[in-house]
Amino acid sequence: MNPLVAIDALVGELRYDDRGLIPAVVQSADDHSVLMVAWISAASLEATIAQGRTVFWSRSRQELWAKGATSGDVQEVVEILVDCDADTLLIKVHQHGGGACHTGSWSCFDRSLAEVESQ
Amino acid sequence: MNPLVAIDALVGELRYDDRGLIPAVVQSADDHSVLMVAWISAASLEATIAQGRTVFWSRSRQELWAKGATSGDVQEVVEILVDCDADTLLIKVHQHGGGACHTGSWSCFDRSLAEVESQ
Repeated sequence: MNPLVAIDALVGELRYDDRGLIPAVVQSADDHSVLMVAWISAASLEATIAQGRTVFWSRSRQELWAKGATSGDVQEVVEILVDCDADTLLIKVHQHGGGACHTGSWSCFDRSLAEVESQ
Repeated sequence: MNPLVAIDALVGELRYDDRGLIPAVVQSADDHSVLMVAWISAASLEATIAQGRTVFWSRSRQELWAKGATSGDVQEVVEILVDCDADTLLIKVHQHGGGACHTGSWSCFDRSLAEVESQ
């Protein structure tokens, strides 16, 4: 994986919440599906940029979470974007392996809650 | 806008945070861009399903926020998906008008924070 080149001024502008976290939407750069949403701390963002693959903050384990480190289903980062409020990230990735979800699904969003009725 | 048909059992499974909110990723069903991330309460989810367009919860104003009510840039909902943990939504929409962002951009994610160095 290649390290990323970051705009340091923008990194410094990020607005973390009171837990020191910021939500990150992960989208496939290949099929454009939204794969998952996870949380990033300043340290995990730094690791993501340095390693060129996603490293999140696990709220349940309270530790850095190198996505795919055990499964091999790593996410190779293509680009990280920030929103207008500087409080949410969008990470575009090449998803390796079988998918992003621990259930085995390609995307964590694989259940429909509501949809327009068929005509 | 058409109302949506919801899977009530899944709606009942949703895990709201300690503020009674759940994050919602909004994606264009047309060009597949991620447009924005906003927060939804149980009441705003109910309104979104009933109206067939996005209604969020404004954390700054502490009130329901019918997206595009003043600008006309409404988001017509096609489908709402829920993730494996039942704590995040993905809302696929037809974005009307000029875009999703109050800055005038199509997507709120329009600034690159980091990217792979050009070879």
